[in-house]
Amino acid sequence: MTATAKPQVGTTTPSAPAADAFQLAGWLQEARPETLQGLLAEAAGSKVLTFALGLPPTELFPQEAFSRATAELFQRDQEALQLGAPFHPLKPHIAALMRQRGVECTEEEVFLTSGAQQALSLAARLFLEPGGRVLLEETSYLGFHHVIKPQIPELVTVPTSFDEGIDLDAVEAVLSRGVRPAVMYAMSEGHNPLGMSLSLAKRARLAELARHYRVPLIEDDPYGFLLFNESAPPPIRALEKRWVFYAGSLSKVLSPSLRIGWLLAPPELHSRLSILRQSMDIDSSNLAQKAATRYLESGHLSTHLPVLRRELKARRDAMLAALEREFPAGCRWSRPDSGVFVWVELPKEMDATELLRAALREEKVIFVPGSEFRCGGDPSLGRNCMRLSFSNLNPEQIEEGITRLARAVKRLR
Amino acid sequence: MTATAKPQVGTTTPSAPAADAFQLAGWLQEARPETLQGLLAEAAGSKVLTFALGLPPTELFPQEAFSRATAELFQRDQEALQLGAPFHPLKPHIAALMRQRGVECTEEEVFLTSGAQQALSLAARLFLEPGGRVLLEETSYLGFHHVIKPQIPELVTVPTSFDEGIDLDAVEAVLSRGVRPAVMYAMSEGHNPLGMSLSLAKRARLAELARHYRVPLIEDDPYGFLLFNESAPPPIRALEKRWVFYAGSLSKVLSPSLRIGWLLAPPELHSRLSILRQSMDIDSSNLAQKAATRYLESGHLSTHLPVLRRELKARRDAMLAALEREFPAGCRWSRPDSGVFVWVELPKEMDATELLRAALREEKVIFVPGSEFRCGGDPSLGRNCMRLSFSNLNPEQIEEGITRLARAVKRLR
Repeated sequence: MTATAKPQVGTTTPSAPAADAFQLAGWLQEARPETLQGLLAEAAGSKVLTFALGLPPTELFPQEAFSRATAELFQRDQEALQLGAPFHPLKPHIAALMRQRGVECTEEEVFLTSGAQQALSLAARLFLEPGGRVLLEETSYLGFHHVIKPQIPELVTVPTSFDEGIDLDAVEAVLSRGVRPAVMYAMSEGHNPLGMSLSLAKRARLAELARHYRVPLIEDDPYGFLLFNESAPPPIRALEKRWVFYAGSLSKVLSPSLRIGWLLAPPELHSRLSILRQSMDIDSSNLAQKAATRYLESGHLSTHLPVLRRELKARRDAMLAALEREFPAGCRWSRPDSGVFVWVELPKEMDATELLRAALREEKVIFVPGSEFRCGGDPSLGRNCMRLSFSNLNPEQIEEGITRLARAVKRLR
Repeated sequence: MTATAKPQVGTTTPSAPAADAFQLAGWLQEARPETLQGLLAEAAGSKVLTFALGLPPTELFPQEAFSRATAELFQRDQEALQLGAPFHPLKPHIAALMRQRGVECTEEEVFLTSGAQQALSLAARLFLEPGGRVLLEETSYLGFHHVIKPQIPELVTVPTSFDEGIDLDAVEAVLSRGVRPAVMYAMSEGHNPLGMSLSLAKRARLAELARHYRVPLIEDDPYGFLLFNESAPPPIRALEKRWVFYAGSLSKVLSPSLRIGWLLAPPELHSRLSILRQSMDIDSSNLAQKAATRYLESGHLSTHLPVLRRELKARRDAMLAALEREFPAGCRWSRPDSGVFVWVELPKEMDATELLRAALREEKVIFVPGSEFRCGGDPSLGRNCMRLSFSNLNPEQIEEGITRLARAVKRLR
């Protein structure tokens, strides 16, 4: 190197790309794999107790009953491996499940998808143009952020909290001053990550806002069948048929590996949903839809679901009791009536990402820091918070995990 | 109605939408379900002989072997129904299949997708921004048009034909005058809809163009394992590793209802592909991937594939012989060495869409008119052409269908 050589910069400049450099779509150039992913990958397969993932309990899957249903399908249906349209006979079962949730819908409103995530993606893309507006909570489901990111949307965020949920005065303030988002997004039951459910009054008001301002509301309800409280109110979709686009899933009640979800949407929009769908993957696994239909026909879900609910309730109770017992004063947390998550607020000065590093290293326990779910709002939002899932470990493991986590908290304070 | 009332227009104007009208994303407002769909739906389930769909022969699916593989999976894998990352043990099998095609690739280059369609969608979105440029043939796979449509791309189209395939002089002319598309799209084997394969020389030149001008080429190869000619050249990906993004699929060789496809892409881009994927559906059916892996482990595919090829070759031969025998002078068609399609050019003055209506009504036989595959170029392109699939009917049905179709052609002339 000569004395006049300029110091080399680690990356190439846009004007002189390396000869083999790809020119990626702009938004993807900036998108980086989350640092969290690396941390979680580090923990995978080890003896680490994880509160990080909201997976259904592996030991509770109805594997025998489902395996029987699949074997029967292969015996009886000679077109089981052939490509087919979305399997219509699954739709009455979905409609029946929706009726259990207090939602009246017809089979014609059920659009089958590859998991609830695709239902969210389709619903958003029905309305959202590149650069369009999306209204959502400052703390909300990471998967929905992923859904809208490629559209580089203008985010209109509103405050939320684990005791109250979405701030509807803020929503109304936005809408009434003439801001018209392409879509709004909300979870009424088992909020991810806040572990809360909206009151009936708030559901009714949100339905009314969607209707009045004619803004489609995407209601994300993967946890709606995991209720621990008999008197839970119905989803928002039960209160507003046209402006609420309901995303449901068999992932949490039957199996996530089947990738079966649905969107409830007016039949007039289904041909548009199909066009959108073709741009992604043409179609779902008809085989999985057929196997799920046979499983649902067997009636097994009605015995499986109460078992699943009871066990998840026991795990929630174990987590809440352990938090009460082990965690220091100055911490607050949600007491979920549904779903799989508890949201914990540590004292203001604590940094949950720092805690996560220490907890993994010293106590072999992990969770997701609250800041991961931040979407707009104050940059410090969620910094002192954690999302804990109680679905993945049994009650004894949960007690052990919370005890370890409490030690890490106390050490860091 | 009073004398001064203005006549009502059937649709509402943008400035005064109906109170319950949805404001759809712009490109979707114009997207209409294809008229063809209606016609095909009309034919479904009836006694109509269909040359319209390129489905694998239902009677040839390895249903027994696959059913056994699934039963074994449920017996041995207690996490069969749990959500999991893309199933890594499937990847060496994909890499081995690619080696059979003459392509050297590592497991790290295999990105698993939900069918080849999703592989196309992901590859396109890696590079294509809204309004970006796509280079493709004037007559090309409809599914790829669907993939790029939401990006409202600027299409740069080049001529093509069933005897020669993509016009590479035209491609070079475009690229050498400085037009840089975000991606190019091509099929080297069993072209849909043209039923042709590119010469080795053209594959090599296309690889060279992609490399020289640094434009990613998406090579769509769903029919690459359905070869009727032992001496077929390898895919373009075998000739250029970095700039060719290869989309493959188990749909045509094992089962389309599993939705298992893959993209070969440099490992450095896989984290971006995952981010893109999360915006669509998070993940594929891990269950289907696991079942397919067990099936491939059983070694059954190596006996199944020759059976499938032999039968498809017999069907192709039946179609070519029947066309020769029944069709009037002035018609020309492709003689495919792979895949499932024959492209037929009728005399210039004939309209294949008109023919389709008559053929359905009078002869109960259907196909897809060539104009459906038009993408740019002269508006009359493909007007006198038909795409005939020979995979869906047995040789006797094919002879009967072509005889009927020939009658309809002669009647319309």
